[in-house]
Amino acid sequence: MSNFEVLCQDGNSKARRGLLTTHHGQVETPVFMPVGTAGAVKGITPQQLKETGTSIILANIYHLLSRPGIETIEKLGGLHKFMAWNSPILTDSGGYQILSLSPLAKIDDGGVEFASHIDGAKIYLNPEIATKIQNRLGADIIMCLDQCTPFPCDEPQLETAVNRTIRWASICKKIHTNAHQLLFAIVQGGVNPSLRERCASELVKLGFDGYAIGGLGVGEGADRMIDMVSRTIQFLPTEVPRYLMGVGTPADIIAAVREGIDMFDCVLPTRNGRNALAFTENGTVHLRNTANADSAAPIEAVCDCYCCTNFSRGAVRHFFNVREMLGPILVSIHNIRSYQKLMAKIRQAIEKKEFAGWSTEALKKYTPIY
Amino acid sequence: MSNFEVLCQDGNSKARRGLLTTHHGQVETPVFMPVGTAGAVKGITPQQLKETGTSIILANIYHLLSRPGIETIEKLGGLHKFMAWNSPILTDSGGYQILSLSPLAKIDDGGVEFASHIDGAKIYLNPEIATKIQNRLGADIIMCLDQCTPFPCDEPQLETAVNRTIRWASICKKIHTNAHQLLFAIVQGGVNPSLRERCASELVKLGFDGYAIGGLGVGEGADRMIDMVSRTIQFLPTEVPRYLMGVGTPADIIAAVREGIDMFDCVLPTRNGRNALAFTENGTVHLRNTANADSAAPIEAVCDCYCCTNFSRGAVRHFFNVREMLGPILVSIHNIRSYQKLMAKIRQAIEKKEFAGWSTEALKKYTPIY
Repeated sequence: MSNFEVLCQDGNSKARRGLLTTHHGQVETPVFMPVGTAGAVKGITPQQLKETGTSIILANIYHLLSRPGIETIEKLGGLHKFMAWNSPILTDSGGYQILSLSPLAKIDDGGVEFASHIDGAKIYLNPEIATKIQNRLGADIIMCLDQCTPFPCDEPQLETAVNRTIRWASICKKIHTNAHQLLFAIVQGGVNPSLRERCASELVKLGFDGYAIGGLGVGEGADRMIDMVSRTIQFLPTEVPRYLMGVGTPADIIAAVREGIDMFDCVLPTRNGRNALAFTENGTVHLRNTANADSAAPIEAVCDCYCCTNFSRGAVRHFFNVREMLGPILVSIHNIRSYQKLMAKIRQAIEKKEFAGWSTEALKKYTPIY
Repeated sequence: MSNFEVLCQDGNSKARRGLLTTHHGQVETPVFMPVGTAGAVKGITPQQLKETGTSIILANIYHLLSRPGIETIEKLGGLHKFMAWNSPILTDSGGYQILSLSPLAKIDDGGVEFASHIDGAKIYLNPEIATKIQNRLGADIIMCLDQCTPFPCDEPQLETAVNRTIRWASICKKIHTNAHQLLFAIVQGGVNPSLRERCASELVKLGFDGYAIGGLGVGEGADRMIDMVSRTIQFLPTEVPRYLMGVGTPADIIAAVREGIDMFDCVLPTRNGRNALAFTENGTVHLRNTANADSAAPIEAVCDCYCCTNFSRGAVRHFFNVREMLGPILVSIHNIRSYQKLMAKIRQAIEKKEFAGWSTEALKKYTPIY
């Protein structure tokens, strides 16, 4: 039986409504996954996260490997128990840290050695280790180890990364033994369409439960990003989920759904939440702005989140001013709820086969974000 | 009709069970009030606070006056709306800041001028201003402006503070006009029994809705503190609530209830929560201790709080290690719940008229705290 079902296809775009079945429950797609890098979605409890409508979250094996360590998480009952999240989890493989921690990473065809960003301790990842660790942690979806490239990136480096990504994916597939987990491969290739095509085609030949597009949203710009999504996705099968990693703003998400993307993760709602920047249907609200000081209105009048149904903009601004944790907590809750409401609207528009038109209107409101 | 009813008196101690009626609801006493100094109980949402069994919280006019200011809170709908707490609130008058911010405070018989701890701006409080501000903010219980003294404190200074505290209380009583608010006076006098007696007797002649004992828990030690509570309380009427300000550890609370105290506030559960120190029935747990790293047990096996029913000690320790906000959030929730469970046990023991014996046993478990 397939783990993914396309429930409905939009009439005038590549957008689709799907249902992804995992060991810890089902996920309605298109879906947004809040990021719990080190075992916690920053600033909020799993209970508050559940109340935002979140169905699946992301954690990162590089961070968990460095602290508290895999053995410790096993002793504490596995990843779901550790995070107190009894719903689907996706773990990233560490490939993104090859980019984000590049000054600390030594990479060759065999794998990558990090000098831990915490204490300099050596952390070695190769496709076998990354897969075995993810098998042990027990996330519902695990990712192949890939080599994520920066933007810009010269051709030889891009090609090397693509070759490694393909070879490593074949090893991950062989090593992967946990039948409760779906294994996704990651397409690299920067902004080079022919490398993207080759990477996608080779990975599809190997056969995975889903495909991610990595190495985008790293400085190439929204237009080029969406162009690369569009050019890559045509080489991916329609019957499995497609995941655009690390993306993005509401506008990015709407545009990528239109190209056929089913899954997203991003730190924007929580990182901005901690910095007093709120997402709304009509753009962003800078809560530190003096104009909000005496505002008895909620961040967003139409919002049903805990913050908006209980607190004024003035109160939230005050909590940031006096450095009360409640400020970051409330705006993180609001922003995640804001993203989850957007995803619900996207799903609804696709079901009505009105997504193409809806998205054109929505992009007028949501762009630009900053 | 009286706002306070003594429901039951313990058989072999001065402990009593009471019911305090306020404009925003009833409060079962003895009660513990978490501290929301600047409009938020640090680290948790009002919803999480409610789930700990908290019925009344404390806020502080000195801090709210400095930021966001009284006019702003009024524009934002008043204190209860501002804090999203639709249950009883008590506001402190600023008298404690005369002690805690003494290098920034100039005091004379008329009042006290603070150079704001934030930006040096002048903040002037006298009994009229402190009362009018509290009338405007709309807390359910407000406090007279007093002069809180340090320990040790020489006799002339103590006597001056007591004289001011009495005179200021008489002004507060005259100025107080909000019939929805209860006005409590504060007994000062350091560790001088005759000054305590005089202060209490003079305040009782003026007549207030309740009496607080201030200026204790400031370094005089637990035994001397309880001795002063015992010596002071005999001059206070039995038919109104007695409130021991800023106290304390579980052991302090048990000992003070035995002397007839009905109300407490303290930052210990939240401050310690943010520092990874958890209160349990069997003493404190230092979560940063390496012994907790691989512990799959909750902080306290018998605890029904959100932290203990969902997270292991090892996970909580990890969140502190990686500086995730979830660590302080979870232990703050646990500690407040721990205090509220203690208060529920205290109330139950008094109802059964078994408090004297119960407290002797309980003090063996709860002492010493650190």
